[in-house]
Amino acid sequence: MLLRKPSGSWLLSSLLLLSAVSFSATAVKAADDQIALQGYSLRNVGTLEQQYAMAHEAGFKAIEIVGDQGVSAGQMRALLQKYQLKVTSDHVQLADLEADTGKIVTFNKAINNHVLIVPWLKPEQRPDSIAGWKQMGQRLDKLGAALKKQGMQLGYHNHNFEMKKYGGKTALEIILDNASPQNLMLEADVAWISRGGQDPVRFLQKYRGRIFAIHAKDNAAIGVRDDEMNFAPAGAGLLAWDEILPAAEKAGTRWYIVEHDLPKDPRAIITSARRYLENNLK
Amino acid sequence: MLLRKPSGSWLLSSLLLLSAVSFSATAVKAADDQIALQGYSLRNVGTLEQQYAMAHEAGFKAIEIVGDQGVSAGQMRALLQKYQLKVTSDHVQLADLEADTGKIVTFNKAINNHVLIVPWLKPEQRPDSIAGWKQMGQRLDKLGAALKKQGMQLGYHNHNFEMKKYGGKTALEIILDNASPQNLMLEADVAWISRGGQDPVRFLQKYRGRIFAIHAKDNAAIGVRDDEMNFAPAGAGLLAWDEILPAAEKAGTRWYIVEHDLPKDPRAIITSARRYLENNLK
Repeated sequence: MLLRKPSGSWLLSSLLLLSAVSFSATAVKAADDQIALQGYSLRNVGTLEQQYAMAHEAGFKAIEIVGDQGVSAGQMRALLQKYQLKVTSDHVQLADLEADTGKIVTFNKAINNHVLIVPWLKPEQRPDSIAGWKQMGQRLDKLGAALKKQGMQLGYHNHNFEMKKYGGKTALEIILDNASPQNLMLEADVAWISRGGQDPVRFLQKYRGRIFAIHAKDNAAIGVRDDEMNFAPAGAGLLAWDEILPAAEKAGTRWYIVEHDLPKDPRAIITSARRYLENNLK
Repeated sequence: MLLRKPSGSWLLSSLLLLSAVSFSATAVKAADDQIALQGYSLRNVGTLEQQYAMAHEAGFKAIEIVGDQGVSAGQMRALLQKYQLKVTSDHVQLADLEADTGKIVTFNKAINNHVLIVPWLKPEQRPDSIAGWKQMGQRLDKLGAALKKQGMQLGYHNHNFEMKKYGGKTALEIILDNASPQNLMLEADVAWISRGGQDPVRFLQKYRGRIFAIHAKDNAAIGVRDDEMNFAPAGAGLLAWDEILPAAEKAGTRWYIVEHDLPKDPRAIITSARRYLENNLK
C-alpha cells in the first residue's frame, strides 16, 4: 500500500511537538485531520492531477472522491501520494453500488478508502410517499449491511428534496429511521438542509453518533453569487455556523468537507472555506 | 372612481345564490376575495394589457402590482376595469417610497389601492449587523407611520437574506420587532423563508394578526425546474402546505398571492397555483 494514514503514535508525537511551538499551530495541525475537500468542487479545473495539485496548494490533506475519477487505483494512489492527500470517502451512485459492488470495493480498498456515500438520487429515482422513502431506507440498510461484511461503511448525502415532509416527517428522517445506524451513516449537507427549509442543527442533534461528515458550504443570499447557484464558502453566507459547528462537534462528526457546487474561482473559494473551518473548529 | 370592490351585500347575495347551485361553486367564489396574483410573474408576457388579460383568463380577480407598471393611473384604472381586477397592493422600492411619497400615494389612491409593500433590498442596501437591521425596522416604522396618516398601510416582503440570524434572531424578526404592528405588516414569502432555512409556520404563528399576505409559491427540488430558479406552483414542490395554509388562516392572512419568479409557462403555472389554493383554502 503506497498510501497510509499516519499512525496514531506519529500523529500524537507531531501534536505534542507542535503544541510546544504555539497554540494556533496545534489547532491547524488538528484541523488537518478534520477538514477535507469534495473533489466535485474542482471538476472544471483541468486534469485530475491539476485538481489534486490545487487541493494540496490550498492546504488540504484529505479529499472525498467521486467514483473512480476516470483513473485506475494505481494512478489514483500515485496522485494521492504525490499531493499528500488521503481519501475520506467515495461518492458512488446507488445503482452502481448495487450492480458493481465487488469492483467498487476493490478499487476503494486499493486506495485505502473504506467509506462509500450515496451522493444523489436523480429526479426519476426519488420516491414521493412515506412508503417509498421507507423502502429506500430499507434498501440502503441492506446495502450497508452487505458492504459492512466487506469492511466498508455506507453513508447518505442529502440535497433539498429529502427535506420534504410526509406526515410531518422529512424524507431524510424516514430513510435514516428505516436503516440501522451501523449500516447507514449521514453525510449532512448543511446548506442543502437549510435550503430545504430545515434546521441542520436539529439533524445533527437527532443523529448524534451517526454523522460521518458534514458538507461545509454556505448559502448566499439572492442577488449575491447568482451565477454560482448562490453557494458561498462556509462562513460567508446565511448559515448559523455558531450553532452548526458546536452541534456537529457534539454529534461526533468525523469530517468537515468543503464543497462548492459551481465555483467561479475554485481556488479562492476552497482556500477561504478551509481557513474558516480551521479558525472555527475547536 | 371607475373600479370599486363589490359591496358586502352584493357579495353576500352572490354567495347565497351560488350556494344554491353547488358547494364547490361557493368555495370558488369565496376564494376570489382571498387569492391574487403578483404581476411580476407575468413580466415577460407582452404588454401590460396582455398580462392582465392572462390573469383574467386564469381566473384571478385581484392583482398585486409593481410600481406604476409604466402607465398612468387613468390607464391602469381602465385596464383593471376591462379585466375585472382589483389591486391588493403595490410593490414599491424603499428609496422611492421615501423620496416620492406624495406621487406614489396619489397614484395608488387613484386606483383604489391602500397598501404599499417594500419588495426587496438590493445587496448594497442590506445591513449585516443587529444594529443595522434594528435601524431598518425603525426606518420602516417611521415610514409606515407617515403613510398611515395618508390612509396607506405599509408592508414588507422578504427573501432569504432576512433569514440570516444575528445573536439567534433572524433579520426579519429584528425588523418586525422594531416597528409597530400598525405601521408595518408582513407579506410573508413562504418559499423564500423556507429557502433561508426557516419554518414559515413559525413566522405565521409569531406574527398572528400582522400578516397582510403570503406569497404562495413553492420550492422545487434540485434537478426539477432548474431553469426556473427551482420555483414551482404552490402544492407542486417541497413546502408543507398542510401546515402552512392552516397557520396562515389562523394568522388572519388577508391575501394568498400567487407568484413565480421565473416561469417558463406563466399561464400554466399561475392557473395551477390558483387552482391549488382554491381547492385547499377553507
